[in-house]
Amino acid sequence: MPVNLTAPDARRLLPVAGIRLGIAQAGIRKAGRKDLLVIELAPGTQVAGVFTQNRFCAAPVIVAREHLARAGAGAPLRALLVNTGCANAGTGAAGLEDTRASCMALAKLLGCSETQVLPFSTGVIMERLPMERIIAGLPACIADLGADHWLDAAQAIMTTDTLPKAASVQVDLGTAKITVTGIAKGAGMIHPDMATMLSYIATDARISAPLLREALAYAAHRSFNSITVDGDTSTNDSMMLIASGKASMPEITDAGAQAFIAVRDAITAIATELAQAIVRDAEGATKFITIRVEAGRSEDECRKIGYAIAHSPLVKTAFFASDPNLGRILAAIGYAQVHDLDVNRIELYLDDVLVARGGGRAPEYREEDGKRVMQQSEITVRVVLNRGTAVAELWTCDLSHDYVSINADYRT
Amino acid sequence: MPVNLTAPDARRLLPVAGIRLGIAQAGIRKAGRKDLLVIELAPGTQVAGVFTQNRFCAAPVIVAREHLARAGAGAPLRALLVNTGCANAGTGAAGLEDTRASCMALAKLLGCSETQVLPFSTGVIMERLPMERIIAGLPACIADLGADHWLDAAQAIMTTDTLPKAASVQVDLGTAKITVTGIAKGAGMIHPDMATMLSYIATDARISAPLLREALAYAAHRSFNSITVDGDTSTNDSMMLIASGKASMPEITDAGAQAFIAVRDAITAIATELAQAIVRDAEGATKFITIRVEAGRSEDECRKIGYAIAHSPLVKTAFFASDPNLGRILAAIGYAQVHDLDVNRIELYLDDVLVARGGGRAPEYREEDGKRVMQQSEITVRVVLNRGTAVAELWTCDLSHDYVSINADYRT
Repeated sequence: MPVNLTAPDARRLLPVAGIRLGIAQAGIRKAGRKDLLVIELAPGTQVAGVFTQNRFCAAPVIVAREHLARAGAGAPLRALLVNTGCANAGTGAAGLEDTRASCMALAKLLGCSETQVLPFSTGVIMERLPMERIIAGLPACIADLGADHWLDAAQAIMTTDTLPKAASVQVDLGTAKITVTGIAKGAGMIHPDMATMLSYIATDARISAPLLREALAYAAHRSFNSITVDGDTSTNDSMMLIASGKASMPEITDAGAQAFIAVRDAITAIATELAQAIVRDAEGATKFITIRVEAGRSEDECRKIGYAIAHSPLVKTAFFASDPNLGRILAAIGYAQVHDLDVNRIELYLDDVLVARGGGRAPEYREEDGKRVMQQSEITVRVVLNRGTAVAELWTCDLSHDYVSINADYRT
Repeated sequence: MPVNLTAPDARRLLPVAGIRLGIAQAGIRKAGRKDLLVIELAPGTQVAGVFTQNRFCAAPVIVAREHLARAGAGAPLRALLVNTGCANAGTGAAGLEDTRASCMALAKLLGCSETQVLPFSTGVIMERLPMERIIAGLPACIADLGADHWLDAAQAIMTTDTLPKAASVQVDLGTAKITVTGIAKGAGMIHPDMATMLSYIATDARISAPLLREALAYAAHRSFNSITVDGDTSTNDSMMLIASGKASMPEITDAGAQAFIAVRDAITAIATELAQAIVRDAEGATKFITIRVEAGRSEDECRKIGYAIAHSPLVKTAFFASDPNLGRILAAIGYAQVHDLDVNRIELYLDDVLVARGGGRAPEYREEDGKRVMQQSEITVRVVLNRGTAVAELWTCDLSHDYVSINADYRT
């Protein structure tokens, strides 16, 4: 049961001029489900991407990085190819060959070169791609191409997700109305740099390639790199930002321009909604937890403390139990490797309830207040370090029996 | 159900000359259980200690460090005082006062000064010590003092442990036979520097103070700092090494002497047995996992990789399910923050089964071999990095439904 999350309404997902999506049931892992997606890009479309930092990154991540670099050098991208069911990670040289062959097969159908296709995979690790089924599924994707298939696309990339994740917004820049629409998948193996997740966000805004990369870095840091479910960084994480440039507007080339800030913020809002949807739909989650660390010396130390809390199995099980065993949060703050931290200056709040100060339980704290907040489905943990002005905000969930069940049974 | 662990046999726990232990039922948290321990030290006894690195360390840790430093400066220690049921952590200035008052109360009964007592606590965080009950329990501890109470002492320091943990060995140094006997507690919130654990190891060997500290550092690194259950570093961890010097032998003052190596190795063997017992008795554990990372450039990188595997909830749930979903181990190796790792050179073994090489699944690997090993209660994961000569060995357990249940219900 996802936490306060419902399926997106297909009618509220706005098409993005220049972008078409085609979906097929290729039978990659299971029959009768959407598992293959082609995102076709109009000529002139720019793409920026960030990928997992995992050294065991999947074959498609290696090839997508390579093709993205070539696109910058004059081989414009024409399509993205995404499959679910098999991650094509931990597959060595053979996996790379499979990925290249799948790009080649789609390129033939589209009349472009292999390097103009970006490949993505998600699913089980250390198994080979079922190449025949993928190649056989591509014509159905092409036949299905349409501008209003965002919800189908969101369904086609799901693995253990219980709900598709998609969001859309329109922004009036004065010169033109632009659209930002995005989809994402992910439910477990979630940790930044990146989460186990795929996300594709498209806009029709006209924006220079360097500013598109800047907007992506900005949005990724505040969204997918600010969530965690279990601290496991996947082999396949990829977030792609696509700009078709079809809106009637002058190209944005100035990072200080109002239009850039408006577009970047719209992209960040969509990315944040998608990232939070991943946490809400996290494996076994029953609570959505916001962790806000304030008044730190640096954002880095705020994030260290936030992630120590977010990753602690003891804190997470206490949230699951709605048990205000809040000393566990103090313990996590204490081991976050911020070596000169003076714990006597820290304040800990649970929503509006002051729990701890002066190195221990606040005298005014009452257990029933903690209990009341712990029973909510959405909780904010606020840690005030009182040693600077930096802030970090992260989102995570609790650790439940269902997390164990889902991950003990995933392959069966 | 602990993994291949049974209660120690009281008759095999050898007394250590100069050390007496007294236990009481003080009703600190629950009635009718042993929860207060005094370890009395004969004059001339040396003590070395290592403590949690948690910044939110407990009041007794702060005071024990202080008294230990004074002991080196000529205030010889006379006793250790340990309570279970309440950690006296996250209790601020009041917690420090409580700890000092408990040392003072015991000092009065023993006719020594407050600074000659080392205090220790374990249990729930952010609650005050029940001082009246502790002080009322001390005379019963004194009345109970005896050299052969090691098993009772092991029971008196348990929290969520299902079995007491104690071990003993005798070593013939040629000049004398010396004894090493130790106890430990811990089951969850286990992560090095230190584990949530208390351990007291005593020997009658005559050994200089600097060499005692050296033996302690050596043993701690290879035992309690090489285990993890959940990555949560406690506020109270303490490991104390006590040497009464009662054996008839010349004092060991040379780090190169055979006698030093023999004593140090005996202490390390006892510490390792106790540390492994903590993992075997870990909350919800059904498997005992040895992680050995070999042929690395440095021990540090081997430990990073080992801990990434040991902390991954996905790897741990796969062990719980006996599911050879071994790509999760590759993923954990990949995100261990060893940034120049060439994954194509790595070999992954599960016991004797070669699972992966060349960046992916080994062609000779058969799923049924992986399945066979995964069903064992003791499993060795061996990662060969093929880039140096360093090695690290760690011990951990799986993540089960019972871990979630135990930690969701701990306070209720």
